[in-house]
Amino acid sequence: MLIVMDKKATQAEIDTVIAVIKQRGFTARPIPGGERTSIGILNNKGHVDGSPFLGLPGVKDAINVTRPYKLVSREFKHEDTIIQIGDVSIGSGNLTIIAGPCAVESEYQALTIAEHVQRSGAQLFRGGAFKPRTSPYSFQGLGEEGLKILAKVREKTGMPVVTEVMDMENMDLVTEYADVIQIGTRNMQNFSLLRKAGRASKPVLLKRGMAATIDEWLMAAEYIMEGGNSQVILCERGVRTFVHHSRNTLDLSAVSVVVKESHLPIVVDPSHAAGQRDQVIPLSRAAVAVGAHGLIVEVHHAPEEALSDGAQSLYPDQFDRMCRQVRSIYNDLKESNG
Amino acid sequence: MLIVMDKKATQAEIDTVIAVIKQRGFTARPIPGGERTSIGILNNKGHVDGSPFLGLPGVKDAINVTRPYKLVSREFKHEDTIIQIGDVSIGSGNLTIIAGPCAVESEYQALTIAEHVQRSGAQLFRGGAFKPRTSPYSFQGLGEEGLKILAKVREKTGMPVVTEVMDMENMDLVTEYADVIQIGTRNMQNFSLLRKAGRASKPVLLKRGMAATIDEWLMAAEYIMEGGNSQVILCERGVRTFVHHSRNTLDLSAVSVVVKESHLPIVVDPSHAAGQRDQVIPLSRAAVAVGAHGLIVEVHHAPEEALSDGAQSLYPDQFDRMCRQVRSIYNDLKESNG
Amino acid sequence: MLIVMDKKATQAEIDTVIAVIKQRGFTARPIPGGERTSIGILNNKGHVDGSPFLGLPGVKDAINVTRPYKLVSREFKHEDTIIQIGDVSIGSGNLTIIAGPCAVESEYQALTIAEHVQRSGAQLFRGGAFKPRTSPYSFQGLGEEGLKILAKVREKTGMPVVTEVMDMENMDLVTEYADVIQIGTRNMQNFSLLRKAGRASKPVLLKRGMAATIDEWLMAAEYIMEGGNSQVILCERGVRTFVHHSRNTLDLSAVSVVVKESHLPIVVDPSHAAGQRDQVIPLSRAAVAVGAHGLIVEVHHAPEEALSDGAQSLYPDQFDRMCRQVRSIYNDLKESNG
Amino acid sequence: MLIVMDKKATQAEIDTVIAVIKQRGFTARPIPGGERTSIGILNNKGHVDGSPFLGLPGVKDAINVTRPYKLVSREFKHEDTIIQIGDVSIGSGNLTIIAGPCAVESEYQALTIAEHVQRSGAQLFRGGAFKPRTSPYSFQGLGEEGLKILAKVREKTGMPVVTEVMDMENMDLVTEYADVIQIGTRNMQNFSLLRKAGRASKPVLLKRGMAATIDEWLMAAEYIMEGGNSQVILCERGVRTFVHHSRNTLDLSAVSVVVKESHLPIVVDPSHAAGQRDQVIPLSRAAVAVGAHGLIVEVHHAPEEALSDGAQSLYPDQFDRMCRQVRSIYNDLKESNG
Repeated sequence: MLIVMDKKATQAEIDTVIAVIKQRGFTARPIPGGERTSIGILNNKGHVDGSPFLGLPGVKDAINVTRPYKLVSREFKHEDTIIQIGDVSIGSGNLTIIAGPCAVESEYQALTIAEHVQRSGAQLFRGGAFKPRTSPYSFQGLGEEGLKILAKVREKTGMPVVTEVMDMENMDLVTEYADVIQIGTRNMQNFSLLRKAGRASKPVLLKRGMAATIDEWLMAAEYIMEGGNSQVILCERGVRTFVHHSRNTLDLSAVSVVVKESHLPIVVDPSHAAGQRDQVIPLSRAAVAVGAHGLIVEVHHAPEEALSDGAQSLYPDQFDRMCRQVRSIYNDLKESNG
Repeated sequence: MLIVMDKKATQAEIDTVIAVIKQRGFTARPIPGGERTSIGILNNKGHVDGSPFLGLPGVKDAINVTRPYKLVSREFKHEDTIIQIGDVSIGSGNLTIIAGPCAVESEYQALTIAEHVQRSGAQLFRGGAFKPRTSPYSFQGLGEEGLKILAKVREKTGMPVVTEVMDMENMDLVTEYADVIQIGTRNMQNFSLLRKAGRASKPVLLKRGMAATIDEWLMAAEYIMEGGNSQVILCERGVRTFVHHSRNTLDLSAVSVVVKESHLPIVVDPSHAAGQRDQVIPLSRAAVAVGAHGLIVEVHHAPEEALSDGAQSLYPDQFDRMCRQVRSIYNDLKESNG
Repeated sequence: MLIVMDKKATQAEIDTVIAVIKQRGFTARPIPGGERTSIGILNNKGHVDGSPFLGLPGVKDAINVTRPYKLVSREFKHEDTIIQIGDVSIGSGNLTIIAGPCAVESEYQALTIAEHVQRSGAQLFRGGAFKPRTSPYSFQGLGEEGLKILAKVREKTGMPVVTEVMDMENMDLVTEYADVIQIGTRNMQNFSLLRKAGRASKPVLLKRGMAATIDEWLMAAEYIMEGGNSQVILCERGVRTFVHHSRNTLDLSAVSVVVKESHLPIVVDPSHAAGQRDQVIPLSRAAVAVGAHGLIVEVHHAPEEALSDGAQSLYPDQFDRMCRQVRSIYNDLKESNG
Repeated sequence: MLIVMDKKATQAEIDTVIAVIKQRGFTARPIPGGERTSIGILNNKGHVDGSPFLGLPGVKDAINVTRPYKLVSREFKHEDTIIQIGDVSIGSGNLTIIAGPCAVESEYQALTIAEHVQRSGAQLFRGGAFKPRTSPYSFQGLGEEGLKILAKVREKTGMPVVTEVMDMENMDLVTEYADVIQIGTRNMQNFSLLRKAGRASKPVLLKRGMAATIDEWLMAAEYIMEGGNSQVILCERGVRTFVHHSRNTLDLSAVSVVVKESHLPIVVDPSHAAGQRDQVIPLSRAAVAVGAHGLIVEVHHAPEEALSDGAQSLYPDQFDRMCRQVRSIYNDLKESNG
């Protein structure tokens, strides 16, 4: 952290800042400049909170110089983390496709879709049993019944399943049935849930919050890792901006930044970013082209009858085309890098 | 809901849309225009999800015509809701000031601050016992110990206390101690928590999510009301935008819109919006001038030693000045309206 | 500027950065920390561009420590700038109200509105002769004919007039007729226009760009001052965010920041921020409460017939109420500060 | 346009709205619903402004049903527009790469870079002679001298050149030298400049404004086309959001939407969106994968010495790699679609 003083700060004000730094157990290094003095804070083990300094007389700014995260950082662990789920590897050197309906609606629906997506090359099946819905009057998912259907899908197809956990009370239940536990965008900073996920025995797919910076997102992952669970898959799913032609704005540069800053795998969810079907395939191609380690995509065999998110679900034949296109791009890239 | 067809939509496509509308139990009213046809959906009791229609051939757009909320709506209940907490009334015709530290740190700290803010005219005391923190390594609050200190503050000063609940597991504990349960910005769409709060016996102060539209915010309140708890206080605390000179951007027009759309009281938190002390007093004045029913403000007797959010906490004498200024503005307004 | 090196940066990489800093004529001050080295850049007269450093091997970040602006800065000129337009003073110690229609439509319309707003206490008259419109098919203003009407309004009422200049070609014409030249939000970074305004003989009202940071806005003012015109009035008019219940989001904390960082006066335009009439009065009160030096407000005697922006124009009696309310808040504040 | 009435709107209020609609020359079609009445506006030739209706008593909302643009719309002209510049075609069925330095700095610099990028497969050369800079103290470009250097580059390499025009005064000069006239993001709603470009004899590359919706962007193109110049190339270059790990957030779904809504070609500028070199190649791949018709990329042979935007300029060998990767993705896509 760097404390920047006002041009007119007095020596007494500078000395006070230095005293407060020392009092907190850090080392203060004053850096007199041509016009003003700055003071570096050294020997801090973790993140330093700038707030106490901003309030002191003569202080103009407090600037963070280092990143606040540790366990998730590539500076901490240099090698890519690869997460193994049965036969499927998620992370560097792999392109993993996760697909299925927004919500599990019935055994027939889930199995029908599962067979379709498996045939096209999906390796994991997704489907919500507990659904976070903006309205209390909307379909909220089948609950445990939905989890049981997911278990049947796994049994029949061999595909591991990804499903969302919405609260601490259901964590054990969801962990029992799921191969990957999803934490949704609205819960990215539900710290109690993150802590609980940190003690879970299954990998966690952590969606980025709709208004989260990458620092905040990685800190949410840090909560999980700090709890002892190092199997975290990050998922970019669009952020909220002034743009309204898509539901959210897919932030693809986040993939490059995450890969640089962290060793964790990152997948992209184009369906929720788009909010409408005809943007999903182009955005999927873009996500793979930018370097994501996988995709999580909504597919429905009869979207016009879906109980949620129908408009953004691909038809099976569209999903099939998508798989062929993204695999081709992925192979291209691999070749050109290899 | 209005379904807008493409200019070149065929009659068969229009007929399909009409059939799907009927199949869902609604009435379809086609509206042929000069250039294209639109189809109104009538006789829906609640909100209609446009997704299934957006996917149909020939459909260009699906436009919501009505609001999705019901119980929170002023169309549902015309009179202002006023919430009574002991002697204090929150809502139309009152200006309620809630003040205290970000986090309860010790009995001495809490009581010292409580005496200060009460003397200046605060009616409720705020203080966090469970703290949502971006970093797992930051101070997370004193937990139940903090709640007990809050109870002592109430006992000694008579001020009702407001404190945050972070998860379902602590809901009963927090409800036992608190006079008002706060749901924080990061939990605004933690639907399990909202449902639980809907069954709580205490009023809920519901902060707006950092990226929430007013519709989403009111729908979060709808979850609480739908559960049976009609004592909801809304709290605007700034939204995330590209602007970085304040921590968040206080959206004061939200106050006008909420007052128009809903019967619930709305207060403003200038401290978290600002993120720095010297913006807090001006924003407090603005919040009262725009018509908010109250303020929730962070105050600390020694901010430079605060364990969290020190930079945005007012000194007691600043808070005193703030109270005098906002009361004066409030009285002015009352007079000019009365 | 502070150059932050990677933890694993080599001494050779550090030396290269130091060499590049020196080569650009600055002084390099290495600051070895516990985990990594940072390098301060000293003795730069103006703003240093971090770009060349970000590209060097071993460099993690380049952080600006000082502000880029100079002439507009309060560090450069400590006393508030007060701009005199005839009898009217704009700036510290004054509350200036500018009012009138969006566009000048006819002599009758302009004079009718001018008489109304003057009676309520407006000191300057606003009205557009050249209108920037999103659509080429919308009414574009009366042009020079509109300017002549403005001159008549001034003649009859004695009120100085504010009107927008849209391009360099019309600068001389507009300067001839206007008492204050307005540069609109879409032209805030039209640098050719700013330079031309820097050589104009009239004060300039510079609206903030819809997506401009305060730094960018102040740098736009710097262009005008650097050209020799030090009479700049800043105008906050809302920024573009994800929020859609108002046309733009009024950023009132910008007023506090501008007053702290700059000596220039700042007024607020609640009409364009709101985009609808019923938010204008509350936001006007908030703007004055936060400490703005004035307001610029749209008023129309028959808004439903207005050729542009009718929905956000106040009726004369609403404007009258607004003036009484904001004057009362202003006097309150003055008293409490004095 | 659809006018939505309050639930409690009286028949008299409904009748007034109908009267105002008729008075403006449109047809009113009342649509009584279960709970409230809406009124459709029919027989409007162009865009209807909702403002006058929003102000009428009993009106809750005014919702646009149709798009405001005409000449740029695919409903107006169904076939893709392909723009021919010498031997180079821009638009559907082609992938056009435009590359060069941010600013022309010298003949040596421009020619060196031009030879590099041409060898890697760039078809057009870009370079700024007039530079819009945030600070008046930054390098502003070589002006006409820069244009002459561009002409030499074209002469020696045969590559057509793209360069920015900043104001009306230089339009003729720039048009004389350039093969494609660029209008920058800060001038996207400089309507005087757009009108002038509508009378220019050269194609126009129109960058999206930093906070522009697609509607506003297409309306800016409509200004140019309405003036008689139908050769418009749209350029997505990132929008301003709360995200700060890239300079702007590249909005790739915009490509899909533009291709659907308009017949005009669209290219992507990853350099300005990223603001830093290591995001440029991944974003270029993503842009081509999403379906853009081309790229405009900054390249410099010695970025650390560049007078502007050095940090985001690719080294020649990076550009070469980028070209190979994007061509490969493009060919893949073509094959899978063909």
